[in-house]
Amino acid sequence: MAAVNIKSLKESQIGEFLNSFDTVLTDCDGVLWMETTPLENSPEVMNKFRDIGNQVFYVTNNSKKTRKELVEKCKELNFQATEGDILCTSYLAACYLKDLGFDKKVYIVGSTGVSKELEQVGIKHYGVGPDIVQKDVPYMSFQRDPEVGAVIVGFDEHFSYPKILKAASYLADKTVLFIGTNRDEKFPLDSNIIVPGTGSLVRCIETCAEREAVIVGKPDTYIVDALKKRYAIDPKRTLMIGDRCNTDILLGTRCGFKTLLVLSGVTSLTDIETWKNSDSQEDLDLVPDYYIDKLGDLLPYLKNFERSSSA
Amino acid sequence: MAAVNIKSLKESQIGEFLNSFDTVLTDCDGVLWMETTPLENSPEVMNKFRDIGNQVFYVTNNSKKTRKELVEKCKELNFQATEGDILCTSYLAACYLKDLGFDKKVYIVGSTGVSKELEQVGIKHYGVGPDIVQKDVPYMSFQRDPEVGAVIVGFDEHFSYPKILKAASYLADKTVLFIGTNRDEKFPLDSNIIVPGTGSLVRCIETCAEREAVIVGKPDTYIVDALKKRYAIDPKRTLMIGDRCNTDILLGTRCGFKTLLVLSGVTSLTDIETWKNSDSQEDLDLVPDYYIDKLGDLLPYLKNFERSSSA
Repeated sequence: MAAVNIKSLKESQIGEFLNSFDTVLTDCDGVLWMETTPLENSPEVMNKFRDIGNQVFYVTNNSKKTRKELVEKCKELNFQATEGDILCTSYLAACYLKDLGFDKKVYIVGSTGVSKELEQVGIKHYGVGPDIVQKDVPYMSFQRDPEVGAVIVGFDEHFSYPKILKAASYLADKTVLFIGTNRDEKFPLDSNIIVPGTGSLVRCIETCAEREAVIVGKPDTYIVDALKKRYAIDPKRTLMIGDRCNTDILLGTRCGFKTLLVLSGVTSLTDIETWKNSDSQEDLDLVPDYYIDKLGDLLPYLKNFERSSSA
Repeated sequence: MAAVNIKSLKESQIGEFLNSFDTVLTDCDGVLWMETTPLENSPEVMNKFRDIGNQVFYVTNNSKKTRKELVEKCKELNFQATEGDILCTSYLAACYLKDLGFDKKVYIVGSTGVSKELEQVGIKHYGVGPDIVQKDVPYMSFQRDPEVGAVIVGFDEHFSYPKILKAASYLADKTVLFIGTNRDEKFPLDSNIIVPGTGSLVRCIETCAEREAVIVGKPDTYIVDALKKRYAIDPKRTLMIGDRCNTDILLGTRCGFKTLLVLSGVTSLTDIETWKNSDSQEDLDLVPDYYIDKLGDLLPYLKNFERSSSA
């Protein structure tokens, strides 16, 4: 079963679909909101999912914010959420190091989302903020801090030449860990400008360091490993919702989740049709089980729904 | 014939070798000098090549300097040179646009080498110098200059997030030309730090723009196309000298030149042995025809040499 339009299902099939999962993972931007505007009925749908007994997780490649800041955003836009429900890449990068028992210092090319999450787990760090070429401190005189044992690359609007030099210099020591939050090349904005995403920054440092980063965000499956370590998740009874097939849906496919694409964001129905007819498994892995125009369109079905006792 | 040690040749074979070319292309850093120190006898060898009737070209992926500045450097270090002998990537980027009859403006992520060479051929430009995140000019409000018809990415120590955004935004228009000076990921310095090369910056912008740049530097062959357009060059009677097989020697192989590796720089004899025994054509293309410890070691042979009248 591939790429079924939810709206084409009979009432009984909708019931079966809604009964088929008890965990919901959802992407945020493009599914729940656009920047700071909630999408129509998305809050109601997510809260309804919770009301009928699903555990709900917000899964975002965002590394600018902490879980706490994302909970605040959710609440402002009327989504119920606690810190435990948020899986953002700033938090995941900190989890990754904590799970390894890491006790050295991190050089961060990134934002306060990453530094604050590291502080939450007691990991030292430096690097956040501007770092530009200065005449009185030539970058060629940079001395590595021997305490540094990891480099994290996340979103960083202060990305600069001296930062690339420092990251690559630390990474010349192969025992230094290399973590990238995600590979999104750019932000999916409907705009006249292209806004660089973390993936472009990670690729720059990978090229210079001649090493590949471990990615904690979607579609890499570390995110689900981290989730499973902390919560009881049955992949067969988990639904992954997203607007972007090469991150959200691919993650779902890789983890054996059911997948639902909403057409309110990056991926269009035309893309899906192309991939459905492809011979390549890579393309086929991008095809969602279900799709719907927008998440809010699920609301009438959810309102009528009562979870069957057999579920 | 692959990877013959010049020093293993008989006197008559040396004579044949020296008689077999009348054009010499040489890389600079690692062959002629290390940063600002000339390598022993390299100036004498290069000047002797010229004395016995070769046309000599200095071929460098450097985009920081102009031809004029490189002539000054040559003279300071006792290499004879005029502007016409210098092929640096700042100049080549300008040639590329000039040869196309380009008459719009260039957005430069690079140094004054590029801007000055563009001025030499009357091409407008902007972008050189610091461009950092500023509160009063948010990067999200960036407006594209409609006059811009090309983006050049060269070495830029002021590389920054706003510059990536601007370059990628111009490149969203597929009619805008995209030129990278070279792909060297880092500088081959014997140092505790990794100094990012232009290749890392080009890769960052390629990732964000989801387009590939045209590269004017080694080992891409545009450099030789540009040379042939301006000078009479017979590939079969041309010698390419370099210290780096994946740029200098590969360029020579691709252009049908004779190739000579000097072991005073990046590539070692061990690398050559590995590639010689490889099954892959990609590896075999890196193997030079000849090698010698350092360029200066050619001096005694050149002193004894008289060009045969049959050459």
